[in-house]
Amino acid sequence: TALKLGMIPADGIGKEVLPAAQRVLEALGSSIPKTTFIPLQAGWEEFQRNGKALPEETIKILKEECDAAMFGSVSSPSHKVEGYSSPIVALRKHLDLYANVRPVSSVKIPNQSSYHQCDMVIVRENTECLYIKKEEIKTNSDGSKIALATRQITSTASSRIGKMAFEIALRRGKEREQAKSQGKSVWWNGQPKVTIVHKSNVLSITDGLFRESVRSVKESTNRYDSIKMEEQLVDSMVYRMFREPEIFDVAVAPNLYGDIISDGAAALVGSLGLVPSINAGDNFVMGEPVHGSAPDIEGQNIANPIASIRSAALLLSSLGYVEPASRINAAVDAVLEEGQYLTPDLGGKSSTTDVTEAILKRL
Amino acid sequence: TALKLGMIPADGIGKEVLPAAQRVLEALGSSIPKTTFIPLQAGWEEFQRNGKALPEETIKILKEECDAAMFGSVSSPSHKVEGYSSPIVALRKHLDLYANVRPVSSVKIPNQSSYHQCDMVIVRENTECLYIKKEEIKTNSDGSKIALATRQITSTASSRIGKMAFEIALRRGKEREQAKSQGKSVWWNGQPKVTIVHKSNVLSITDGLFRESVRSVKESTNRYDSIKMEEQLVDSMVYRMFREPEIFDVAVAPNLYGDIISDGAAALVGSLGLVPSINAGDNFVMGEPVHGSAPDIEGQNIANPIASIRSAALLLSSLGYVEPASRINAAVDAVLEEGQYLTPDLGGKSSTTDVTEAILKRL
Ligand SMILES: CC(C)[C@H](C(=O)O)[C@@H](O)C(=O)O
Ligand SMILES: CC(C)[C@H](C(=O)O)[C@@H](O)C(=O)O
Repeated sequence: TALKLGMIPADGIGKEVLPAAQRVLEALGSSIPKTTFIPLQAGWEEFQRNGKALPEETIKILKEECDAAMFGSVSSPSHKVEGYSSPIVALRKHLDLYANVRPVSSVKIPNQSSYHQCDMVIVRENTECLYIKKEEIKTNSDGSKIALATRQITSTASSRIGKMAFEIALRRGKEREQAKSQGKSVWWNGQPKVTIVHKSNVLSITDGLFRESVRSVKESTNRYDSIKMEEQLVDSMVYRMFREPEIFDVAVAPNLYGDIISDGAAALVGSLGLVPSINAGDNFVMGEPVHGSAPDIEGQNIANPIASIRSAALLLSSLGYVEPASRINAAVDAVLEEGQYLTPDLGGKSSTTDVTEAILKRL
Repeated sequence: TALKLGMIPADGIGKEVLPAAQRVLEALGSSIPKTTFIPLQAGWEEFQRNGKALPEETIKILKEECDAAMFGSVSSPSHKVEGYSSPIVALRKHLDLYANVRPVSSVKIPNQSSYHQCDMVIVRENTECLYIKKEEIKTNSDGSKIALATRQITSTASSRIGKMAFEIALRRGKEREQAKSQGKSVWWNGQPKVTIVHKSNVLSITDGLFRESVRSVKESTNRYDSIKMEEQLVDSMVYRMFREPEIFDVAVAPNLYGDIISDGAAALVGSLGLVPSINAGDNFVMGEPVHGSAPDIEGQNIANPIASIRSAALLLSSLGYVEPASRINAAVDAVLEEGQYLTPDLGGKSSTTDVTEAILKRL
């Protein structure tokens, strides 16, 4: 078998970090199937060039030719631009990538002052909530304006993201047991846990449905009996993540809360430049660093390639190539723990290329 | 003149911290007008007793007899209960308390490990966004459910909250200048700044309107020429608040984002038990600690009374009693800096009463 990967660097530093991930994948050689990389267009820059943020061609090739994809990062116009709509949101929808899985874990980097013990996975619903983009605006007779957006929560989408969260908790529990039996130290010694994040004290109907749907995933089977289930209101979640991040294992959240808490978690581990994600559906998966396009550092070869490289590892592991994925992660951890090659976001002076090459050496 | 204050302890620790605030107000003696405290009911416990979370009587007395009010904290049922709706959200609406002003600043507490330099005010829109509580649910023919909520943003509400934010930034700028001229050290030496928090890369119409409305407040006058205006997407805001809280002065946000980022800011300064707020309208103001009802520590006399006491100070200062408000704040700061009397949330062993009395002594 061979792999065809759609590569969509999109905007800003996406164009610098995605090639880094590609170099790492290429370096794996025969431990993964022969991989072809297909460059594809999307983004705000593409919109400015050709009037489409997400060309049909890109969707067509992804659907018809690719086994999976990697996405860089998007910029957005600072104000509403007629005809422009976020291509990453659209891609998630088009490919039915209903789960955004974001593992956030701390690595001991030498000389990093703020060090939080954190090893959690955020499982973000990726298709609905306020991201359905149903918005309208009206002008009143006095000239004032009223804008409305619709937030949609369905039992179907909430259950399937809930199931994903419990499955991940189950797998993490097993991995920890295995690590312990090999004499490795693990942070989390407790029972695997899923924390449901919502705001049902205000949104009793929509978030009430999310909460109930996720709860029934556990309650309707004995498969998840070993997993603890807890809840946090989203405001309280942000508070606790910063006060005691070590208490979280897997968190599952509707789209917008998931977006917000994953940036929060990224701050805990030192940099958004470290946090990977995959957008996963039943038939397709797309790796994507959690960071944005960072226009302020674009083109300087100083963006941290690690989020993107780790996203490639996540992608591999979700395709079943667990062993090569672990090799990538081990190489990344080694470089971080050594602390010699760090980009400026981590207080270092290395370039994107330096860090990538350091990782390649340790593969 | 005399002052009539409605006192609504509501649920959980609200019933312990509100009396503490009252003791401090009483101790101010003749430096404020003679104050009568009128106990009023609301909350989840009240709902369980009498079937109403917010009795009409409470609203009537607040509107007809009170000059201002203090609110404790509410519990909420863990699942949807017919007829129950959050009384704090309803009070904000009934009294048109359109601004929720939450100053968050760090105090050097001895032996506190995580210490962030933070001195910001979060100005949260308090009447709309997803808090309008327009929600509905439908069952599809296959038994699955779809729930919808409406998020409302108006130019009117966004402009008035924007104006409030710029006014606060102006006042803070003046206060800092004054402090500096008195030889005091201030953290923030830069230009006063207002950061607009939104997510217009996804919600281009609703958050676009919020953003535009706040921007025009500044752009339509030269009154705010001295104030810098910046923007942050809400996810990025949470990230940056944790990475570099010292860069923020005043942040203005739609209701839900404001809710989330103020809990985040509270984590930065050591405890939710320190963060006060006022719900302010053009004709009424209600002090309210940012923390919740904390059922886990209820009735143990260990809740931190400082958020509530500082809310009383904020209330006084918004009513024009700036001098007695500063006395309260100075007493609180003295107790914190001394580090002798701290409740468990700050790593201490003191009781609510101990801390309150320590503050009373330093008044
Ligand atoms: C760019 C933006 C639309 C996106 C989102 O909100 O999903 C980003 O913040 C992310 O987390 O992937
Ligand atoms: C209790 C809840 C309805 C409330 C809110 O979300 O506004 C609380 O979190 C707050 O911050 O005052």
